[in-house]
Amino acid sequence: MALKKADLILTDIDYVLTMDENLTVFEKADIVIRDGKIVDIGKEKKNEYFGRTVVCKGKVALPGFVNTHTHAAMTLLRGYGSDKPLKVWLEEYIWPAEGKLVSYQFVKDGTELAVYEMLRTGTTTFVDMYFFENAVADVITEVGIRGVLSTGILDFPTPAAKTPDEGLAKTEEFIQKYKDNLFVYPAVGPHAPYTCSPETLKKAYALAEKYGVVYHIHVSETEFEVQTVKEKYGRTPVEHLDSLGVLSSLTLAAHMVHPTEREIQILADKGVKVAHCPESNLKLASGIAPVPKMLEAGVVVSVGTDGTASNDDLDMVGEISTASKLHKGVRKDPTVVNSRQALLMATRWGAEAVNMGDKIGSLEIGKYADVVLFDFTKPHLNPVYDPYTQIVYSAKGTDVDTVVVAGQLKVLEGKVLPLDREELLEKANFWKEKVLS
Amino acid sequence: MALKKADLILTDIDYVLTMDENLTVFEKADIVIRDGKIVDIGKEKKNEYFGRTVVCKGKVALPGFVNTHTHAAMTLLRGYGSDKPLKVWLEEYIWPAEGKLVSYQFVKDGTELAVYEMLRTGTTTFVDMYFFENAVADVITEVGIRGVLSTGILDFPTPAAKTPDEGLAKTEEFIQKYKDNLFVYPAVGPHAPYTCSPETLKKAYALAEKYGVVYHIHVSETEFEVQTVKEKYGRTPVEHLDSLGVLSSLTLAAHMVHPTEREIQILADKGVKVAHCPESNLKLASGIAPVPKMLEAGVVVSVGTDGTASNDDLDMVGEISTASKLHKGVRKDPTVVNSRQALLMATRWGAEAVNMGDKIGSLEIGKYADVVLFDFTKPHLNPVYDPYTQIVYSAKGTDVDTVVVAGQLKVLEGKVLPLDREELLEKANFWKEKVLS
Repeated sequence: MALKKADLILTDIDYVLTMDENLTVFEKADIVIRDGKIVDIGKEKKNEYFGRTVVCKGKVALPGFVNTHTHAAMTLLRGYGSDKPLKVWLEEYIWPAEGKLVSYQFVKDGTELAVYEMLRTGTTTFVDMYFFENAVADVITEVGIRGVLSTGILDFPTPAAKTPDEGLAKTEEFIQKYKDNLFVYPAVGPHAPYTCSPETLKKAYALAEKYGVVYHIHVSETEFEVQTVKEKYGRTPVEHLDSLGVLSSLTLAAHMVHPTEREIQILADKGVKVAHCPESNLKLASGIAPVPKMLEAGVVVSVGTDGTASNDDLDMVGEISTASKLHKGVRKDPTVVNSRQALLMATRWGAEAVNMGDKIGSLEIGKYADVVLFDFTKPHLNPVYDPYTQIVYSAKGTDVDTVVVAGQLKVLEGKVLPLDREELLEKANFWKEKVLS
Repeated sequence: MALKKADLILTDIDYVLTMDENLTVFEKADIVIRDGKIVDIGKEKKNEYFGRTVVCKGKVALPGFVNTHTHAAMTLLRGYGSDKPLKVWLEEYIWPAEGKLVSYQFVKDGTELAVYEMLRTGTTTFVDMYFFENAVADVITEVGIRGVLSTGILDFPTPAAKTPDEGLAKTEEFIQKYKDNLFVYPAVGPHAPYTCSPETLKKAYALAEKYGVVYHIHVSETEFEVQTVKEKYGRTPVEHLDSLGVLSSLTLAAHMVHPTEREIQILADKGVKVAHCPESNLKLASGIAPVPKMLEAGVVVSVGTDGTASNDDLDMVGEISTASKLHKGVRKDPTVVNSRQALLMATRWGAEAVNMGDKIGSLEIGKYADVVLFDFTKPHLNPVYDPYTQIVYSAKGTDVDTVVVAGQLKVLEGKVLPLDREELLEKANFWKEKVLS
């Protein structure tokens, strides 16, 4: 039998958790990659192909993680003003630093630092909302990680635009520039129902609909927001957005901490996706989202880390571990948000949340080869009764050993290949000095 | 000036977080160790001594962590039966496995696996309750990590003893054998107020008092326990224990998830210490302990991981990160359980919880040199606005680079020196096969 050509063959993987519809698991299996995509997967596949081979004994493969809500560049503000009341944190720490420093270069350097950490801990796609998303795009096309990128649009002047209309115009330009990119997936980013007028929210939605891109918005993050929207519009945030016609399968609602039963039903009916950010919601004392209820109602719930200024990391493994345990404790039921659901939130459901379910989110023939391999030869991951629970409850993001994005090796033996660590530390320190000066 | 002799000099440490009464921080400082103890600490100390030197540039030093509640040997059951209802988990997974396998060798091998992970993630003292504590003692005296060791005493037969009296007699022997050991600190371990009769609880306390050792007991872990104790004795668990005269500064109460205001006051009045185990309490759906209230009442709260069958790790950094965020979210106040308090719970307050506050828990001249150094040259720990918050919110246990116990280097560059990784994995796998057969 003639051997077929492959670009990359990952062989002898202890367990491949495909996260497909049947949660198929292959033991002692191979993943074969060509032209950025998975062309074969299963036992004894390696014998049919020739090409660069990476032996993955002792490792467990998963689809790359999809972090569905973050502000990557804020990594330069990691931990700044922690443990302070929300108002003090925002008004005395975050906003002054941002007002003084946010620029193309700040966003570029901050995103590089963020992308290092994301790749290192197994994230291969992230959803961003910030300013100067062109800087984010420049970083990710160079490094090779996928980003669903949205410029934050608000009714007051931002570092990106003086008016919401200017922000929307720039967003449209950005969408046109990157509409067929392998790494950049443009999105529209109206900030929130309390910071955008109904008119801005509707215009933003029209733009998302025109191009079929994600409508990425913060919703129901704090009780303050819920109260503000109720007072202003006589409706809860989700009802308000629904009345404006901006809820659909394009809509990705970040946080969703305080939905009523009725709001959960609206989310399910309209096919809205949720980006659950448990660690940020806890640390900023926003509250605890009713994730089991949303899942029961059929809402697609994914997971985001939020920015590191409020988390303070970009580690999806830590995030799903927290989510899984938190909801068991709050709901007083150890069976809710089980390890399979937790991993689905971080993989396939994350892909569905950004309407990329046909491209990424599971390890299947025809999908992009976005693959993460955990090193299971570490004592703290043994013994292995169940690889799913081991990843969710015992592993750390830094137990990721190998990461492949679109068929390209980005992390090998824990080393992030496209970025220089020393240079990142110098840049981080440079901006820290600026923040403190 | 003549140089003084030292056994080990840790030099050029970026930040030394001493965790002393004033939370003194030294920058660019040295720690000088002789005869297992800290003999000097501060800036430019290295120039006064000669001896083995480890340069610690880019690192942050802390006292070794004190894990105040675990069942180390259960690491062989890591993740076994996760996501199941509590009754199923216990009756179909944990108890049958324990009934079949717990022995000197099981405990020895399980403890080795646990000790590897504990050292790797910065724990230098742990509080154990299990069976065959002589096996635990054998491991820790060989490896060199401190253990406060108690045999679980229950009113029904255990792998260690047919009757509680036999368990207490063995405990007394154990106390006498190890009373002056550098690593083993014997304790008395009545299991819980619902599994021990008042008579057993009192006899156990008499033994603890006779030798001045820790009285280590599970209290108020589940609502079921609270209900059971109330029905049987007409009092809540803490009131019940108080009525028996077994609450004092010797008492270390693990879990304490459901105390009433009145019970919290009793804990404070009697000087009882609490071992807070947030991740186990969440994962088993036991509930969320009112830690901010206990701290406000002046109770010494420390942190334990519980066993890995219910956590599923032994990582104190993850545990305090969870604790710190969890209570902010539940209390809706981002200032509670701040990063300094979280680290105190894991260090000085942990030492106080086992009445070893004069020996360990802070980096001060005269105390044992139990030192942990984090590698802060990793991108996910930068920039550094505040080293306390960075450790609690951004670091992972595996960011620990160097660990010293009683002046002896146990971990260097992330390698656990006294234990062989391959051998541990073989043993873990051996016992897994036994569990599943």
